[in-house]
Amino acid sequence: MIKVGIVGGTGYTGVELLRLLATHPEVSLHVITSRSEAGMTVSELFPNLRGHVELVFSIPEVDQLAECDVVFFATPHTVAMALVPELIKRGTRVIDLSADFRLKDAKLWEHWYNVPHTCPELLDQAVYGLPEVNREQIKSAQLIAVPGCYPTATQLGFLPLLESAIIDPKNLIADTKSGVSGAGRKAAIGALLAESSENMKAYGVTGHRHLPEIEQGLNLASKQSVGLTFVPHLTPMIRGIHATLYGQLTSAVDLQALFEQRYANEPFVDVMPIGSLPETRSVRGSNTCRIAVHQPQGGNTVVVLSVIDNLVKGASGQAIQNMNIMFGFDEKLGINIIATLP
Amino acid sequence: MIKVGIVGGTGYTGVELLRLLATHPEVSLHVITSRSEAGMTVSELFPNLRGHVELVFSIPEVDQLAECDVVFFATPHTVAMALVPELIKRGTRVIDLSADFRLKDAKLWEHWYNVPHTCPELLDQAVYGLPEVNREQIKSAQLIAVPGCYPTATQLGFLPLLESAIIDPKNLIADTKSGVSGAGRKAAIGALLAESSENMKAYGVTGHRHLPEIEQGLNLASKQSVGLTFVPHLTPMIRGIHATLYGQLTSAVDLQALFEQRYANEPFVDVMPIGSLPETRSVRGSNTCRIAVHQPQGGNTVVVLSVIDNLVKGASGQAIQNMNIMFGFDEKLGINIIATLP
Amino acid sequence: MIKVGIVGGTGYTGVELLRLLATHPEVSLHVITSRSEAGMTVSELFPNLRGHVELVFSIPEVDQLAECDVVFFATPHTVAMALVPELIKRGTRVIDLSADFRLKDAKLWEHWYNVPHTCPELLDQAVYGLPEVNREQIKSAQLIAVPGCYPTATQLGFLPLLESAIIDPKNLIADTKSGVSGAGRKAAIGALLAESSENMKAYGVTGHRHLPEIEQGLNLASKQSVGLTFVPHLTPMIRGIHATLYGQLTSAVDLQALFEQRYANEPFVDVMPIGSLPETRSVRGSNTCRIAVHQPQGGNTVVVLSVIDNLVKGASGQAIQNMNIMFGFDEKLGINIIATLP
Amino acid sequence: MIKVGIVGGTGYTGVELLRLLATHPEVSLHVITSRSEAGMTVSELFPNLRGHVELVFSIPEVDQLAECDVVFFATPHTVAMALVPELIKRGTRVIDLSADFRLKDAKLWEHWYNVPHTCPELLDQAVYGLPEVNREQIKSAQLIAVPGCYPTATQLGFLPLLESAIIDPKNLIADTKSGVSGAGRKAAIGALLAESSENMKAYGVTGHRHLPEIEQGLNLASKQSVGLTFVPHLTPMIRGIHATLYGQLTSAVDLQALFEQRYANEPFVDVMPIGSLPETRSVRGSNTCRIAVHQPQGGNTVVVLSVIDNLVKGASGQAIQNMNIMFGFDEKLGINIIATLP
Repeated sequence: MIKVGIVGGTGYTGVELLRLLATHPEVSLHVITSRSEAGMTVSELFPNLRGHVELVFSIPEVDQLAECDVVFFATPHTVAMALVPELIKRGTRVIDLSADFRLKDAKLWEHWYNVPHTCPELLDQAVYGLPEVNREQIKSAQLIAVPGCYPTATQLGFLPLLESAIIDPKNLIADTKSGVSGAGRKAAIGALLAESSENMKAYGVTGHRHLPEIEQGLNLASKQSVGLTFVPHLTPMIRGIHATLYGQLTSAVDLQALFEQRYANEPFVDVMPIGSLPETRSVRGSNTCRIAVHQPQGGNTVVVLSVIDNLVKGASGQAIQNMNIMFGFDEKLGINIIATLP
Repeated sequence: MIKVGIVGGTGYTGVELLRLLATHPEVSLHVITSRSEAGMTVSELFPNLRGHVELVFSIPEVDQLAECDVVFFATPHTVAMALVPELIKRGTRVIDLSADFRLKDAKLWEHWYNVPHTCPELLDQAVYGLPEVNREQIKSAQLIAVPGCYPTATQLGFLPLLESAIIDPKNLIADTKSGVSGAGRKAAIGALLAESSENMKAYGVTGHRHLPEIEQGLNLASKQSVGLTFVPHLTPMIRGIHATLYGQLTSAVDLQALFEQRYANEPFVDVMPIGSLPETRSVRGSNTCRIAVHQPQGGNTVVVLSVIDNLVKGASGQAIQNMNIMFGFDEKLGINIIATLP
Repeated sequence: MIKVGIVGGTGYTGVELLRLLATHPEVSLHVITSRSEAGMTVSELFPNLRGHVELVFSIPEVDQLAECDVVFFATPHTVAMALVPELIKRGTRVIDLSADFRLKDAKLWEHWYNVPHTCPELLDQAVYGLPEVNREQIKSAQLIAVPGCYPTATQLGFLPLLESAIIDPKNLIADTKSGVSGAGRKAAIGALLAESSENMKAYGVTGHRHLPEIEQGLNLASKQSVGLTFVPHLTPMIRGIHATLYGQLTSAVDLQALFEQRYANEPFVDVMPIGSLPETRSVRGSNTCRIAVHQPQGGNTVVVLSVIDNLVKGASGQAIQNMNIMFGFDEKLGINIIATLP
Repeated sequence: MIKVGIVGGTGYTGVELLRLLATHPEVSLHVITSRSEAGMTVSELFPNLRGHVELVFSIPEVDQLAECDVVFFATPHTVAMALVPELIKRGTRVIDLSADFRLKDAKLWEHWYNVPHTCPELLDQAVYGLPEVNREQIKSAQLIAVPGCYPTATQLGFLPLLESAIIDPKNLIADTKSGVSGAGRKAAIGALLAESSENMKAYGVTGHRHLPEIEQGLNLASKQSVGLTFVPHLTPMIRGIHATLYGQLTSAVDLQALFEQRYANEPFVDVMPIGSLPETRSVRGSNTCRIAVHQPQGGNTVVVLSVIDNLVKGASGQAIQNMNIMFGFDEKLGINIIATLP
């Protein structure tokens, strides 16, 4: 049993961490913080947790957090970087679901997030928590930067193609569709049901913060600077990301075999049979990424369809997958969940 | 470990049984039948089960089913009554999710279902599987009739009031709202997203098949023939039942205390604090029924709000709750699930 | 052609007024105000109006508003009562979509709205704008209080029963379901798609502001003080109200004939054939209220199903219906719209 | 006033034709046919039409149809080609919303639709009813093939780029998202709310029937054979198509000016200001196509966002736009509708 803390538990990644950790057999929930809701029971805010989680939100205090074996940050950017250095110093491991430690280049981070980075010295040490790429480093990591939702779905779809150098890395297109929970649990007119239901729209076409994160990962995979057009869309559903990825083939290979081999030993990547059309609902509430690869009309364009639940494999589930790896548990422990369908 | 069979696994209660039984620690899935899909793997029809359930649909055969300790029927009405007598004779216990054994009065059943009942002699023996009423009989039952979804939400809401005889049993109103999965996984124009999304409508006002089932239960609770108006509504969501129940108080009692005491030892009924407004999403995917009781403006009308997931506490979860009781397992085993929110 | 002004055009009733008035053949849109969006073109905020409405939001100024023949207030409560007295004095007619002038009793208004009423002397003069009740007074009214959405659907459903005194006025139940646009275009966590989609919940059970308004109307119809239990529900759709109304019959009458006669000359009330189940989508975007009346199992309980579009017959359409009556236009002019289905 | 007939009025394009034609000032609805619903009033099937359309469905008879000035076919493919030759012979003009006359190449048509074409001799004569391309031919056309929904959104988005030859015609990607009404009003499990709500999926990746139609149009625009990858997606909403189009620029031009000039005189194409993100709801129920053009990060990839209502500009509205052109009416007559928002 390890002692676990959560900083910032009032958002969607927070309640999702609680849903998953509450039944994790190796976890003892020690503390959950929220400045705004301090004193309120967690189950008052999230009635689904009634009878399952008895915690009360408290003001974040370093001493209490440092008693934990691991602390999750489910906070907006800039919160983690203020607390993490002290926790690391005291030997507490950190799994940050925010964007603070995802980019290796502090200047690039500051460009996209428009604030100074207050602990750039930790960026090198931070491990990008995509187990399908960095499993070995995760094992011993002190600080994990959990990948964003779009970056998870997009990288897992492009990786086999770029690692094997069979597509033109300069001409990548990621047309991605996300449910509205990706915008978080915050009052915003655009995310009202009356605004976003019965509606489809692109957003962030001129530049979305997940773009540099995806590029960083794809650059590493292809060992060069990729050219990526990334267009996210707001979709009228709560959960789910559907990434439709396009690349231009430069060699003829058995795409199905390539994908199956790449992910043969991955517990949470499911390469579906030839001709499959993955549905986001098939992963809803689960930590699985389902992928299908197509070559329409036998042409040069390869189309990869990659679906995840943005709050699980795209956030809290992947965070726990990292925790399992870090503490030597079975990687699937507590998160080997079957999606709820319908 | 018990051997479990499922007859008719291609509908929504079937896939939900599979989701829950696949991870039940005392269950070994032995057989799942479907005449229409025989030969197809279960996970081909329901991709959420990929990697979790390896079964293949097969033609139902009595010999194979009789090898099971218990067989679930997740079938339209009339299917179970054709097979159940033989299974019972061979000593296999049966949990029927359909309507075949819910009514004690064969004539009444035939009136509402418009076909002859082919084994009325089993109606007495069948135990109505509402654990909050019949837990003792369930333990030794050979044949369980799992309550319908509306009947579960409605009875759990009315029971404390009728058992304590504090409302007029002749003037009960149940205004109920259900997600469309209640109509089952069958092609019907009225259940298309294009027809039922962005829409609200009542149906079955002149008579719904759940009416006699609810009346039977409420008659027993109030020891007299109740007068119930039951109006179901089709609601634009997948899962969830919200029952809004109205009664006329005949004595002044502490309603909150009454409900809390009635369900104090019930693992799957959550009486919420005074003033609460239960949401269907707080039970989505879980086996819990959440209830709140109100007395608006201190008047004579009591309003009970009762929510369940129609496919879990209203069907497959309750079926497994019955199984747990029948086989002496912890009643919560395998179904102590936290709802997914948002 | 009349000159029309709109105060507070940035909400859902505002954009709906614009949609309808933009093509009204007797209307010239003169001014639309918004303190928060002053200077912005209307079509920038509401792209559906591009090419149809050229207005720019401006700061409200009495002089400019007083140039209009009629001014609509599509504002939160308390805004209209600050401006209306001056406009009335200058001879401009006012149609207020807010709650400021709906209740005749200033004390009751102040009890429910928790602020002082600053022009109680106008309450008597204000005409409650339900044409099916007050058509004559509307013709010459200087000030119209447009009914709320729930009050419109509920009163139109109960009126024939109470006016003819065939139900017990002390035992009325209104179980109502509304789409989330009823909450207005304002950022609120509870109205996010991620919170209110795939969810059903009651709210305001202990007291909703539409309760006294409905009671006032039903008291007048029944010539006594009614007893009403009113339970609104938040429904996962954008538009639509479904009111399910229950009364206890005290005499036997031909209910269908009663309703058909009551509304025989009403252009916007459609009494559907016996056995009908009105759908909210059948009135989406239209000014029609569709009603069906049922007597389940021939018992004493009468069930009325009444559906409207909360933003049209429940707000902006009804406001224009009032305008048509006030200025002697054909009552259907500009609002005789066919619902969009699917 | 012209006499209008509709063959096959029980689907979504049928009810949409009725909604629009019922208030068209130059149209007299003469006959509407349906083999399956003959004898039923139209408003019984589509209650939104109560009080607006008095027609009764009848068995299709050539004599009666030939009395019309124009007959719309809102039928599945192969129905129109059986009746059209005789109608044409008798001088009745035909506007076919189905696919029967969209492709010029009968062999190609037969390849994609898997049945023989029974009147290939009419393919040359048929005018492809995209007014933004073929307005002149439409004026005198005897037979119009109304473009499909995806083809309309996709062609209008690509046309300015291909006509001016500033992108590589061999590397076009159309990632398109459609509401489920595009699948028509027919019982199909995949289109149930319980299946398609809270879900996103691609379909038809290996080949969709709209692909050859789009290619035909783009070939004409670019005067060569284009290379197009077309991936449609099923989106959890009723109406709306969002086409996200990608091309590789071969010359530097002012994209905004190019689009604005191309559509300067088009009444139903709205090129939005630079940086806009069109929403499908901004065109819901209307005949407008809204377009925005982006060049992310100033790179070589041009991204066009094009939205329509699949049942209006993508079907029935465009059909009536053709009718207006054919009969010399104002092109906007009866279809200059403002979208309903929210």
